[in-house]
Amino acid sequence: MAEDTHRTEGDPAQAAWRQRLYRVIFESDTRAGRRFDQWLIGIILASVLVVVIDSMQGIAPPHRLVFAALEWVFTAAFTLEYVARLACVRHPWRYALSFFGIIDLLALLPTYVALLVPEVHALIDVRVLRLLRVFRVFKLTAYVVEYQSLGRALQASRRKIMVFLSAVLMIVLVMGTLMYVVEGPANGFTSIPTAVYWAITTMTTVGFGDITPKTDLGRLISSAMMLLGWGTLAVPTGIVTAEMTARRFSSAHPARTCPECLTEGHLPEARYCLHCGARLPSLHPVSEEPVP
Amino acid sequence: MAEDTHRTEGDPAQAAWRQRLYRVIFESDTRAGRRFDQWLIGIILASVLVVVIDSMQGIAPPHRLVFAALEWVFTAAFTLEYVARLACVRHPWRYALSFFGIIDLLALLPTYVALLVPEVHALIDVRVLRLLRVFRVFKLTAYVVEYQSLGRALQASRRKIMVFLSAVLMIVLVMGTLMYVVEGPANGFTSIPTAVYWAITTMTTVGFGDITPKTDLGRLISSAMMLLGWGTLAVPTGIVTAEMTARRFSSAHPARTCPECLTEGHLPEARYCLHCGARLPSLHPVSEEPVP
Amino acid sequence: MAEDTHRTEGDPAQAAWRQRLYRVIFESDTRAGRRFDQWLIGIILASVLVVVIDSMQGIAPPHRLVFAALEWVFTAAFTLEYVARLACVRHPWRYALSFFGIIDLLALLPTYVALLVPEVHALIDVRVLRLLRVFRVFKLTAYVVEYQSLGRALQASRRKIMVFLSAVLMIVLVMGTLMYVVEGPANGFTSIPTAVYWAITTMTTVGFGDITPKTDLGRLISSAMMLLGWGTLAVPTGIVTAEMTARRFSSAHPARTCPECLTEGHLPEARYCLHCGARLPSLHPVSEEPVP
Amino acid sequence: MAEDTHRTEGDPAQAAWRQRLYRVIFESDTRAGRRFDQWLIGIILASVLVVVIDSMQGIAPPHRLVFAALEWVFTAAFTLEYVARLACVRHPWRYALSFFGIIDLLALLPTYVALLVPEVHALIDVRVLRLLRVFRVFKLTAYVVEYQSLGRALQASRRKIMVFLSAVLMIVLVMGTLMYVVEGPANGFTSIPTAVYWAITTMTTVGFGDITPKTDLGRLISSAMMLLGWGTLAVPTGIVTAEMTARRFSSAHPARTCPECLTEGHLPEARYCLHCGARLPSLHPVSEEPVP
Repeated sequence: MAEDTHRTEGDPAQAAWRQRLYRVIFESDTRAGRRFDQWLIGIILASVLVVVIDSMQGIAPPHRLVFAALEWVFTAAFTLEYVARLACVRHPWRYALSFFGIIDLLALLPTYVALLVPEVHALIDVRVLRLLRVFRVFKLTAYVVEYQSLGRALQASRRKIMVFLSAVLMIVLVMGTLMYVVEGPANGFTSIPTAVYWAITTMTTVGFGDITPKTDLGRLISSAMMLLGWGTLAVPTGIVTAEMTARRFSSAHPARTCPECLTEGHLPEARYCLHCGARLPSLHPVSEEPVP
Repeated sequence: MAEDTHRTEGDPAQAAWRQRLYRVIFESDTRAGRRFDQWLIGIILASVLVVVIDSMQGIAPPHRLVFAALEWVFTAAFTLEYVARLACVRHPWRYALSFFGIIDLLALLPTYVALLVPEVHALIDVRVLRLLRVFRVFKLTAYVVEYQSLGRALQASRRKIMVFLSAVLMIVLVMGTLMYVVEGPANGFTSIPTAVYWAITTMTTVGFGDITPKTDLGRLISSAMMLLGWGTLAVPTGIVTAEMTARRFSSAHPARTCPECLTEGHLPEARYCLHCGARLPSLHPVSEEPVP
Repeated sequence: MAEDTHRTEGDPAQAAWRQRLYRVIFESDTRAGRRFDQWLIGIILASVLVVVIDSMQGIAPPHRLVFAALEWVFTAAFTLEYVARLACVRHPWRYALSFFGIIDLLALLPTYVALLVPEVHALIDVRVLRLLRVFRVFKLTAYVVEYQSLGRALQASRRKIMVFLSAVLMIVLVMGTLMYVVEGPANGFTSIPTAVYWAITTMTTVGFGDITPKTDLGRLISSAMMLLGWGTLAVPTGIVTAEMTARRFSSAHPARTCPECLTEGHLPEARYCLHCGARLPSLHPVSEEPVP
Repeated sequence: MAEDTHRTEGDPAQAAWRQRLYRVIFESDTRAGRRFDQWLIGIILASVLVVVIDSMQGIAPPHRLVFAALEWVFTAAFTLEYVARLACVRHPWRYALSFFGIIDLLALLPTYVALLVPEVHALIDVRVLRLLRVFRVFKLTAYVVEYQSLGRALQASRRKIMVFLSAVLMIVLVMGTLMYVVEGPANGFTSIPTAVYWAITTMTTVGFGDITPKTDLGRLISSAMMLLGWGTLAVPTGIVTAEMTARRFSSAHPARTCPECLTEGHLPEARYCLHCGARLPSLHPVSEEPVP
């Protein structure tokens, strides 16, 4: 998003080379740029696939060796690409700290860290997030924009959501403790954190069933929790739905005002004022409409 | 849907015979056509019932033989009907590739394929989809039309939904991998695909509970997933609800048509046509409006 | 609801007696009628409580005898009441076939049927449905009316909902069969009805987890089912929410029309037309408002 | 909320001291008051953390002793604070019976009661509810107000929700009993309360899976319950969403006030005051409206 423009200062030959590299790597409006993006997508997908298949049981050891080799090849390619990106932007730090800069780095680290801590190895497939760039390549930005605007609307009510979440956290802490006291470790509620995990599981209607109330009192309390949890669950659904309904309506009725009588609320296809019958200005720049 | 009209070319006697067959098989406005449809529904239901009962335990072997025989009878009837349909439409290929043409073929195949691969035998009851024709016979098309228009509206936002789904897929892949690393095969997260299946189970609040987090860190991560999964779940609900609310309101606005240019879709408060500016008849019987 | 008026024909003394009985049993505007209703509620609650407690483990046999005796007392009281109701209404059959008439009968039958089939004994607590009359006694009818109007609105779209439900039934039958073929009896999908039960469990996000996919292919199919089931789940939520939003708005904006310029959409508190400033007719019968 | 103002009657020196104490404890607009609130939050969080960690397995006995000591220190501090609060308000009883007064008392009791009944010890973390005061300290009241207004709106429809809940309770009682009769104690439905707990679990789509139907008839009934439970689940979602959509829209309409009589709440299209019929200023800067 906050990706930087190419570097131009310094030696002009190097600057030209950097600019060409920049256009290939960061932009997708040239043929080379588009081909680069397509190759990148292919390699990301192949690389994630290797990690996924590698995690599955029943892969013979010789194949594992091939997979390990492939992973190093992919990581080398991504490392090279990361260095190239750093080299051709004007403000490397700004890129490195941008959303995609961090994703690009995270996509490299697990392979190196796994030399020390083998367990994190599978985290390599965080590189699937690099596919978010795909939306740019496939001209899907228009659709992303819509979600971004929804996201911005929700972010504007960030504090309101925070208040809601902290209220929910207090409720699940109190309810979880109550169940911990009522049911006790013998029935699976081994500690307060476990009981809180159970309360969240229940309030969100996920209901795994790995821990369940066994006593009559515990079942009574959780029945009340489930019935009242409904209303709680409805609050975020209501926030998002109200936002979307408002968008649905406002996109159907863009504000148009009659220049004569100032009446508002005309339909997009309207050419004459619904109140006084005066001609409305066209919604579109070129407006040579025939006078009937 | 895209069903063809009857063949008329060629020998006139044969053409007449085809036309009669077409009216019986494809249309339901004659008595013969209606009776044919009713028989068809009866045979489809009987045939599905046979497959369902056959799958249940505790059916004595002699009955199984009867069921196998019945199934061949039904399949023979459907095969005959399929050939008849092909014979009487003008463009057999167009019918064969239409939605109902494919359903009709799929309803036959499993019996034949089961000779080679016995396991697929139960798939015969895909023929229940043939009942979709019922909506036509019972004059339910008006109600189907409404869902089709909702479907079209959702299909229009096909790409938007695709963006949403691919974002969800990325999230479940990353979350699944994280849980695979944290919990590991010892706690049931045997591979990344399994962990992704668990993540989908959790995000959609289905929560089977066949795989559940056992470690404290794993439970912390899944608690966060569940609380934040709420908002995600609300997005498709919001899309559908906003669409339906918009429809509910627009259906409350009575259709008004301009007497001059026949344009439709005026707002209730409109006094002049939005297209030609002509005076609209009032919504109310008495319309002598005073000039203010 | 469809309760009958009292009988008046026949011998006048008996008619008067019947009329008095009718007022006590069926109406609650006299003191005797209210006291009768309160006693009835008490007995119903006591009777249901007895059945519930009786079903719990760890009740000593001597208590069970007391419970059995109590149950016969309650049933005798209800039988007497049922006969009295039949005796005092003008059209006994019409009462017997009305909604509450059937409930009243069902509240008696299990005790008698349990003499032959002891298992049904617990069904006695269907008599809790008799408490629906409570809404009348406690003047809650106004709130019930609102749900009834929602119910009527949904009943008006009865066929639309039927089309939706039958589409859902076809989907779960086909998906269940597919899972039955893929997973097979060894993994818990013992028959097609069982697999359909599993599919309904999954589509509605209940997810008991008594039956779960074990193969990779089965998990892939059920993941797709869950992700797409979201949209399906949103349809009934959307229908009800759209209906309620429409009601919320229409109750906020009752239709009022200006008698001068026929402009609509005035707020309930409006006294002057928002468009031409003319005096609006009052919403309330007595309208001696001061002229400013 | 209903917290009292400081006491002023009696000896003036003591009154001044009380007033100072009141400002520190109950208000947060002085430096001392703010610091007091921050310390309080810190101690509450520490105290809850101690209880949570204490409940976890694998804490060595010596640490448990430290925790017990800490808990007594915290409880002593809270007891002192509670007494100080009682001492400085004018009407101690009114404070003691207010929402926060009760919470403050509940936050002390478990430690003392645990001397007699050790099990309730963990309930100490009900003191997390004291954090609700945080909203005041961090100036989050504006966000809380919004939820309070939603809460008030829902409370206004208290009886309507009560009718809904009692209808749901009747349904789950009848369905639970039916399943108790059909499945019986052998399949986990050991009593009617247990079966009702199962029915609530199923209707709210939580679906723990600790109790599940095993017979074909039981599975058929629960499938019907789940499919029809959808619609029921949609009702509270619909209530909350409709309320929020209405709020979302009314907040989109800017407040307009009549310059003559100061009446508020005019619609955007209004040209004349709905109360006194005076001309309203236009929503738009240029307002020379032509007479049509």
